[in-house]
Amino acid sequence: MRKIIIGVMGPGTGASETDWENAYTIGTLIAQEGWVLLTGGRNVGVMDAANRGAKSANGLTVGILPDAGDSGVSDAVHIAIFTDMGSARNNINVLSSDGVIACGMGAGTASEVALALKANKPIVLLTQDRESQRFFQHLSHHHIWIATSPKDAIAFLKQALTRRGKTP
Amino acid sequence: MRKIIIGVMGPGTGASETDWENAYTIGTLIAQEGWVLLTGGRNVGVMDAANRGAKSANGLTVGILPDAGDSGVSDAVHIAIFTDMGSARNNINVLSSDGVIACGMGAGTASEVALALKANKPIVLLTQDRESQRFFQHLSHHHIWIATSPKDAIAFLKQALTRRGKTP
Amino acid sequence: MRKIIIGVMGPGTGASETDWENAYTIGTLIAQEGWVLLTGGRNVGVMDAANRGAKSANGLTVGILPDAGDSGVSDAVHIAIFTDMGSARNNINVLSSDGVIACGMGAGTASEVALALKANKPIVLLTQDRESQRFFQHLSHHHIWIATSPKDAIAFLKQALTRRGKTP
Amino acid sequence: MRKIIIGVMGPGTGASETDWENAYTIGTLIAQEGWVLLTGGRNVGVMDAANRGAKSANGLTVGILPDAGDSGVSDAVHIAIFTDMGSARNNINVLSSDGVIACGMGAGTASEVALALKANKPIVLLTQDRESQRFFQHLSHHHIWIATSPKDAIAFLKQALTRRGKTP
Repeated sequence: MRKIIIGVMGPGTGASETDWENAYTIGTLIAQEGWVLLTGGRNVGVMDAANRGAKSANGLTVGILPDAGDSGVSDAVHIAIFTDMGSARNNINVLSSDGVIACGMGAGTASEVALALKANKPIVLLTQDRESQRFFQHLSHHHIWIATSPKDAIAFLKQALTRRGKTP
Repeated sequence: MRKIIIGVMGPGTGASETDWENAYTIGTLIAQEGWVLLTGGRNVGVMDAANRGAKSANGLTVGILPDAGDSGVSDAVHIAIFTDMGSARNNINVLSSDGVIACGMGAGTASEVALALKANKPIVLLTQDRESQRFFQHLSHHHIWIATSPKDAIAFLKQALTRRGKTP
Repeated sequence: MRKIIIGVMGPGTGASETDWENAYTIGTLIAQEGWVLLTGGRNVGVMDAANRGAKSANGLTVGILPDAGDSGVSDAVHIAIFTDMGSARNNINVLSSDGVIACGMGAGTASEVALALKANKPIVLLTQDRESQRFFQHLSHHHIWIATSPKDAIAFLKQALTRRGKTP
Repeated sequence: MRKIIIGVMGPGTGASETDWENAYTIGTLIAQEGWVLLTGGRNVGVMDAANRGAKSANGLTVGILPDAGDSGVSDAVHIAIFTDMGSARNNINVLSSDGVIACGMGAGTASEVALALKANKPIVLLTQDRESQRFFQHLSHHHIWIATSPKDAIAFLKQALTRRGKTP
C-alpha cells in the first residue's frame, strides 16, 4: 500500500543545463516506474525540472519546502509539505526517500548526500564532477553509485530496492 | 494542480471510541471531496482511523511521522514523510494543511491547535470537551469553529477554503 | 557540572504590563538561584523581560531563536541558538528546560505548555486567565501548578526539581 | 554582551586519535579566547574531546543534542540543548556558530561543513584528508580554510571574525 518514494536532489539557481535536462528525464522515468517523486519543492533548478518531468508522465510529486508559505513552490508539485525549517528540512528529504539521486552538486546537495549516507540510503550521483565522486566514494563505498545517465540511475535504484526487499 | 490538504489531528492511544468513529468518517468525507488527508501517520487512534476512512473511499493519504524509520506507520498511509523530529513535526502538520480538524483532545492535539492558530489556519474542533472549546475560542474567536458532527466539520472547511480563494 | 535550565515562556508583542513585570522578576529570581534562563530569545514581551531580569542579577541567559540570523535578538541574551525553525523550535525550548514557567498566555505559549505536558516537564502557570488554568489542569493534573506570584513559581520548581533528584 | 560561539564538529565513534587530540587542544584554545564552545554534545569522539578541553581551561560549553533526553551527553557540557531532531540538528549547530572548525571527517561532519557553506559561515578544516580538502575547496573557495594545527585554526577564525566586525 505504501508507495515507493525516490528523492531527487540538486542545485536550485545554480543548476547547469545538463543538470536540468537530467532531472527532467529522471522525473519522467520515476513516474513511469509508478514511484512517487520527492524533491525540495521549489520552482527552480533540479527540483523544478524533476517535478515537470514527473508531471509530464502523469506521476505523483511531493515537495518538502524550506518555507512556511505558498510562494516559490514548483507548479508541478501535487503535495506541498511546508516545514519552515530552511536547510534542516534536507534531513526529512533524505529520511523519507527509499533511494536518493543527486543530480549535479552544490552545498545544499552535498549536505543531502552526506545525510543520506548517514541514514544508510541507496544513493546515486549523476554528476561529471570528479571531486564529488571521489569525496563521497571515499566517505562510503557501500551506498554510493556513480551513474552515467538517468537510465543508469534508475536501474541502480531498482536493484538496490530489490536487495532491500522493497518490490519496486 | 496543487492538491487541497486537510489535516486531521487527535489523540493516539488515548482516543475514545467516539473520536475513532468521527475520525474514520472524516477521513471518508475528505476523500469524497477529492482532498488529500494529512495526519501524524502513526498506526494508533485518530491518525489511524482517519487514514482507514480515507482509504476506504479511495482517498490519498499523507503521514508526517515523528520517527526516522518504518515501524509504527498506519497501514493506510500512502505517502510516509519521516521527520525524526518527535513533536516538533506538529508544526509541519499544521503548516502543510489548508485546514485542520481536531478530533478529540490531548496534549499533542492541543499543541497542534495552538500552532494552527498561530499559523492563521482554519480550525475545526470536533470534541464535546467544554474546557477545550472555551480555551481555544478564548485564544481566538476568528479561526475556530466548534463542530457537532463530521459533516458539520467538512461544511465549515468548505466555506473557509472558499473564503480564502481555494476552490475546494 | 550540567547547569539547571529553567524555561520562561510567554507572549511577545501581546504581553501585558503584568506579564512583563512578572517575567522580569522571574528572570531575577532564576539568576539568584544560579539557574540558567532559557527563553525564545526575541527582543519583545516576556522573553525580553525575563532576559533583562536575569541579566540584572548577573545570571546566564540562553535564547532559542526562531530565525536564522542576528536581528530581533534580545540584548540581554548571552548565548543565542539560531534554529531557523519558526514555531517548531518551541519543542526545543521545552525539551531543554528542567522546568517551565508560562507567564501570560497566547497561541505560541499554549503550544509550549502543551508540548511541556507531553514531555512530562514540571510546569507553572503564572496567569490570572481562568480558561487557561482550567484547560491545562483538565489536560493533566499531575504536572501543572497554578502560581500566584513569581516567588510562588520558583518555590514550586524547587520542590519539583528536588523530587526528580536534581539538586537545585 | 552576546558571546562569540565557535562550533567544533567531527566524528563521534569514528574519530581517530589525532582527531581526538586536536579537538581537545581546540577546546582549550577556544576557552582561552573567552569564546563559548558549541558541539553536538554527545559523550564520544570529537564532541567529547573538545568539551573536555574547554572545561580544562574553564571555558563555557554548549551541546546541541540529537536526542530528547539525558543519556549520552558529554560530562563536560554545561548547557545541554535537547532537540530530538537527529541529524536535522546539524543545521542548528552551524547557524548558531560564529565560526566552524571541522576536526576530522565523516558523513555527519560533511553535512555540517556543507550546511556551513550554505549559511556563509567561516569554516576551518583540520584534517589531512585530501579528498575532503579538494571537495570543499572546490565547492567554495571563499569561506574554507585548510588548517595545519589547532593554533592555525584559531588564528584563521580570529581574522575572519574581525573581518566580519565581531570583536573576538
